[in-house]
Amino acid sequence: MDGSVRIGILGTGVVGQTIGGKLVELGHDVKLGSRTATNEKAAKWVAQNGARASQGTFADAASFGEMVFNCTSGTVSLEALRSAGSTNLAGKVLVDVANPLEFSRGMPPTLSVSNSDSLGEQIQREFPDAKVVKTLNTMNAGVMVDPSSVPGEHDVFICGNDVDAKSRVRELLRSFGWRNIIDLGDISAARGAEMVLPIWLRLMATLKTATFNFHIARG
Amino acid sequence: MDGSVRIGILGTGVVGQTIGGKLVELGHDVKLGSRTATNEKAAKWVAQNGARASQGTFADAASFGEMVFNCTSGTVSLEALRSAGSTNLAGKVLVDVANPLEFSRGMPPTLSVSNSDSLGEQIQREFPDAKVVKTLNTMNAGVMVDPSSVPGEHDVFICGNDVDAKSRVRELLRSFGWRNIIDLGDISAARGAEMVLPIWLRLMATLKTATFNFHIARG
Repeated sequence: MDGSVRIGILGTGVVGQTIGGKLVELGHDVKLGSRTATNEKAAKWVAQNGARASQGTFADAASFGEMVFNCTSGTVSLEALRSAGSTNLAGKVLVDVANPLEFSRGMPPTLSVSNSDSLGEQIQREFPDAKVVKTLNTMNAGVMVDPSSVPGEHDVFICGNDVDAKSRVRELLRSFGWRNIIDLGDISAARGAEMVLPIWLRLMATLKTATFNFHIARG
Repeated sequence: MDGSVRIGILGTGVVGQTIGGKLVELGHDVKLGSRTATNEKAAKWVAQNGARASQGTFADAASFGEMVFNCTSGTVSLEALRSAGSTNLAGKVLVDVANPLEFSRGMPPTLSVSNSDSLGEQIQREFPDAKVVKTLNTMNAGVMVDPSSVPGEHDVFICGNDVDAKSRVRELLRSFGWRNIIDLGDISAARGAEMVLPIWLRLMATLKTATFNFHIARG
């Protein structure tokens, strides 16, 4: 993307703050959205990130952004997006980074939607005028914005129905430092991307670190 | 494993034939098992693989093997294992390579069990005296027995409840040429290993080859 873009981020957790911080660093204007306009975590993030950083409600952030990131917990994403409002999302690229991890049934978490459907598809169905692009959900937040934190070749997956929207997200990913971007096709590929979470969680436990990533080795 | 081992393989498809062929090549005695003792595909495989190769029913193969491989289609694995017989599997290492891919509901296939359970766990629950080790299910048959067919570093996952059984399978994997073997823990990790199939299928379509594999890049 040439120059500065206004970006709305839904969600004030580690993923939203980390992606938001990186976007500000890259010269974009970022509004972090949450349930209320006076979220403490968001206020702290705004104070740390300077003049290009602001906060507001989900609707404020979605309205502000030319591009919107869904960084909420997957089990509450649809509710957050409804609160953001379909008119505020219409025609925009909606980057879905969320995972539908259900922790309420004990450990290990399961996926609240999977196999024959996915969160990415649910969002696209409910917000048909948004251009949903699923990406970055298969790694830790730190790796999302700094691929060089994991040595060697490794990959980020991308999928969505709108080719132009995927190009724009690809460009943003390149500005984060990504070189290996694998396009899995339409938004139904979100099933596969979300279903790697169970092995990701096992790998984190086995490797005792979250600083790792998938690479597809091939000829 | 020192010297020759008797191995029973359940399933006469590409996976069973490919693993069976490799095991014969490594000097083991292999019996390929199917529903009948006179399976045409198995007969052809026996003719191609020489004196150490034989065929029989599922029960014949399980009874013959000191170690048994489940290479049947995942949706019929439990039925095949019942036919093999729990007494023929008791005390043995049962290497589960199958994926519960359900093709009957149209494309893309879904998993007939996933998320809060897995085929590996179902098998271990129904055959508690077998030592189930899930491995090799995350790649194409050719890559399973010839990791060097994919250039660069890439990995095979292993999981199961019995530490000694995993050591023996690890040794067998090393004899196939595997160097990067990642132990995901107990058999419940089969959920994660089986749930990578949807992204694997998407990657095959995108990359237009099945000769690729997952690598976990890390520091």
